Amino acid sequence: MLKVIINGCSGKMGRVLTKCINESSDFELICGVSHQNTDDLNLKTYSTMNEVNEKSDVVIDFSHHSTLDDVLDYTIKTKTPLVIATTGYNDEELGKIYEASKIIPIFHSYNMSLGVNVLLRLVKESAKVLSDFDIEVIEKHHNKKVDAPSGTAVMIANAIKEVLPSLENNYGRYGREAKRKQNEIGIHAIRGGTIVGEHDVIFAGHDEIVEIKHIAQSKDIFAKGSLAAAKFIVAQEPGYYNMDNMF
Amino acid sequence: MLKVIINGCSGKMGRVLTKCINESSDFELICGVSHQNTDDLNLKTYSTMNEVNEKSDVVIDFSHHSTLDDVLDYTIKTKTPLVIATTGYNDEELGKIYEASKIIPIFHSYNMSLGVNVLLRLVKESAKVLSDFDIEVIEKHHNKKVDAPSGTAVMIANAIKEVLPSLENNYGRYGREAKRKQNEIGIHAIRGGTIVGEHDVIFAGHDEIVEIKHIAQSKDIFAKGSLAAAKFIVAQEPGYYNMDNMF
Amino acid sequence: MLKVIINGCSGKMGRVLTKCINESSDFELICGVSHQNTDDLNLKTYSTMNEVNEKSDVVIDFSHHSTLDDVLDYTIKTKTPLVIATTGYNDEELGKIYEASKIIPIFHSYNMSLGVNVLLRLVKESAKVLSDFDIEVIEKHHNKKVDAPSGTAVMIANAIKEVLPSLENNYGRYGREAKRKQNEIGIHAIRGGTIVGEHDVIFAGHDEIVEIKHIAQSKDIFAKGSLAAAKFIVAQEPGYYNMDNMF
Amino acid sequence: MLKVIINGCSGKMGRVLTKCINESSDFELICGVSHQNTDDLNLKTYSTMNEVNEKSDVVIDFSHHSTLDDVLDYTIKTKTPLVIATTGYNDEELGKIYEASKIIPIFHSYNMSLGVNVLLRLVKESAKVLSDFDIEVIEKHHNKKVDAPSGTAVMIANAIKEVLPSLENNYGRYGREAKRKQNEIGIHAIRGGTIVGEHDVIFAGHDEIVEIKHIAQSKDIFAKGSLAAAKFIVAQEPGYYNMDNMF
Repeated sequence: MLKVIINGCSGKMGRVLTKCINESSDFELICGVSHQNTDDLNLKTYSTMNEVNEKSDVVIDFSHHSTLDDVLDYTIKTKTPLVIATTGYNDEELGKIYEASKIIPIFHSYNMSLGVNVLLRLVKESAKVLSDFDIEVIEKHHNKKVDAPSGTAVMIANAIKEVLPSLENNYGRYGREAKRKQNEIGIHAIRGGTIVGEHDVIFAGHDEIVEIKHIAQSKDIFAKGSLAAAKFIVAQEPGYYNMDNMF
Repeated sequence: MLKVIINGCSGKMGRVLTKCINESSDFELICGVSHQNTDDLNLKTYSTMNEVNEKSDVVIDFSHHSTLDDVLDYTIKTKTPLVIATTGYNDEELGKIYEASKIIPIFHSYNMSLGVNVLLRLVKESAKVLSDFDIEVIEKHHNKKVDAPSGTAVMIANAIKEVLPSLENNYGRYGREAKRKQNEIGIHAIRGGTIVGEHDVIFAGHDEIVEIKHIAQSKDIFAKGSLAAAKFIVAQEPGYYNMDNMF
Repeated sequence: MLKVIINGCSGKMGRVLTKCINESSDFELICGVSHQNTDDLNLKTYSTMNEVNEKSDVVIDFSHHSTLDDVLDYTIKTKTPLVIATTGYNDEELGKIYEASKIIPIFHSYNMSLGVNVLLRLVKESAKVLSDFDIEVIEKHHNKKVDAPSGTAVMIANAIKEVLPSLENNYGRYGREAKRKQNEIGIHAIRGGTIVGEHDVIFAGHDEIVEIKHIAQSKDIFAKGSLAAAKFIVAQEPGYYNMDNMF
Repeated sequence: MLKVIINGCSGKMGRVLTKCINESSDFELICGVSHQNTDDLNLKTYSTMNEVNEKSDVVIDFSHHSTLDDVLDYTIKTKTPLVIATTGYNDEELGKIYEASKIIPIFHSYNMSLGVNVLLRLVKESAKVLSDFDIEVIEKHHNKKVDAPSGTAVMIANAIKEVLPSLENNYGRYGREAKRKQNEIGIHAIRGGTIVGEHDVIFAGHDEIVEIKHIAQSKDIFAKGSLAAAKFIVAQEPGYYNMDNMF
């Protein structure tokens, strides 16, 4: 059984991860870290990583970019492999993660789901062959989501631009003179109800369309993806890893 | 056989309508009107309606809002029923159409397809029952379309607002703080390839979604809808008619 | 607070309903009935309805058609309004339900979701106007579902045939000579993963398609629908009611 | 300009190809071959390939499997590269094609569209990574199509089975005991209206779905694909080529 510490144990994803660990026979949850009230969690918790006395096989981080220093201090000090599923880092923070990965193995992905990572690969391959098709990205999420478009939609657009660097994102086509430019990736953020998350990439050519779509039906897929990453990262040398390394 | 004059015979829709009339045994095309070169049409043409010497059973207008005075002069003068499939009229022009309908029967619709008009009715009915669901409209068209969103998407949003007047259109959600407001209709204009036209209305509630979608596979449906309207309007008293009257 | 007894409290839907009642401030769960082991439920339970000593405002039945006599005996004896969400009744059993509804108010629906019932209405209305379009039904469910097609898909086909009685169901088109007959409703059962439930009705005509779709994202919608039905039925006179009466 | 002879010039695809060649400045149509009446074609035609006196750079075959000997005789005799877009060959005929490809370059594909061939590659790649997901194929075509499922759907299933050889096709799940077996590929043939052709491959896993879809909006894509193949094949040594060689 792999021993796990969760940084961000009282957030939405922290709770889903806790449930998935408790249902699994491969993982054991040692303790959690959260700035918020954790009385309802039935788990030993600390308010910062640096207060943690326990040692684990891996730390999984579903917290906030502001806790980065804290989690890197702990994992470097204790030589614990780290899975980062948190989003919103700026360039300086990304640099710190990269530096830390010279000392400990770090797995970092903006989207932990297997399916989304398959989608990213398929989209890149399609962009190579269908380079003169028009590409549009439609994402759908629940009505509580604050940002638009989703981080995953941005990842998808970036993956396309790795292959077709002349393309540029266009959010929200509107007006009497809003004709599509050839070098656009249109990105559209649909919001409604309790939709967990959908990403649909459309390659529209002359009289034919290729469409690649991912539908998430629960947040479990992100928790389970982070656990698959945990199993992977504990067997690695120090370094910076992502989903491509896992496949 | 109903005798037809087309105003706007050399435009895209004018040509499709010409083809549909030629393939039909119920209609006969008498002549056409166009400001543009019509040498390739194999049809007797005039550059304005007022030059037309022929009489027909019905005039079908797929032209430009600027020809309105010309077509109303002719149809009033000759007491010819009129089908208007042109878009882009301002309020003054709409008023003129309405005034003319006291003298001759006028059929007026922004979208002549049977399916789109069924969609409009279903959307209105759904909005009544699912009034607390989040409503979003996604339309898809080819990459040559100049305006966004489509006129039909605006018609759909207007139909929803007849039922739920507190709602407001939102085009292009974007940013770090772009959370959906409860009173929004999100409208999204996808552009790519040669897509003829799709309109998808999503009602997203707690853990369930109702979706109503129309797909146009060719412009023929608009031509055929205008011919169905022509058959209908020639049997009517003077007045202002639309698709709801036809059903 | 409405007092509720659940018949079938230990089944999948019984557990979902228990959770929804516990999360709601409008309902109170008095006790449950189940043939199976209920030790993990933290609820007073009986193995048959006739052993129940408590009185409630309404009984909600998510059990098995074989318990019908038991639940009707209890509800008639105690004059308790009844919501039946169980499926699989034969004609004799349906007759008994109808007879009982002369004595107590009974709400009966094969699908308790608001959205599915909206879909049914939209499909019927479309079938009236698009009577010469080809109609196909596609349903998608998880890979554990035993029967195909789903009961809801059959309900949809029956609703279409109320409007277009000459149509006949066709399951599984296959072969070198499998051309669609004009009077077919093609019904297709997709199975995979953990899909909760989707029903998609396609009206395909000449160069246009109207599509009406319902997506269930969790079983909560059936539980919540049954609670809405419970609120409705406690205010009714004896009689046989369904979703159409609620709208 | 590449000189082209069409075998099967009066069939549906022959006519579409004629139109595409006439609209293109890269190709010139020399003559056509058809058993049927070709008076309306405005093209020099023969009833069999062996009567053709002209020489061309390439022969494109959109005819019937029964004309195979005729077209191979001509192309071998004249050393003309051959694009075969005809379907329905039996094993003996496929053997003849293969033998002929030792003497002349032959391009052979059951589906000439670029998009479908991209779909095939994406599906194979997904099947490798998502090998424990449930795979279902949904295809949609017009109501005049005689066979079900489509040849392309069978190609897709075969491509999946190259990667996952234990899978077996299942057409038309139906009954009270119709639970999905783990080793099934469900294949579903939707028919309606004038749908040109859609193929949708669903990979359904635990709480997530990856979907890959191709939509054909006109038969032009098959004609244009065959012209792309023609450009490719005229530059090749004798051999047997397909879409994978072109990418």
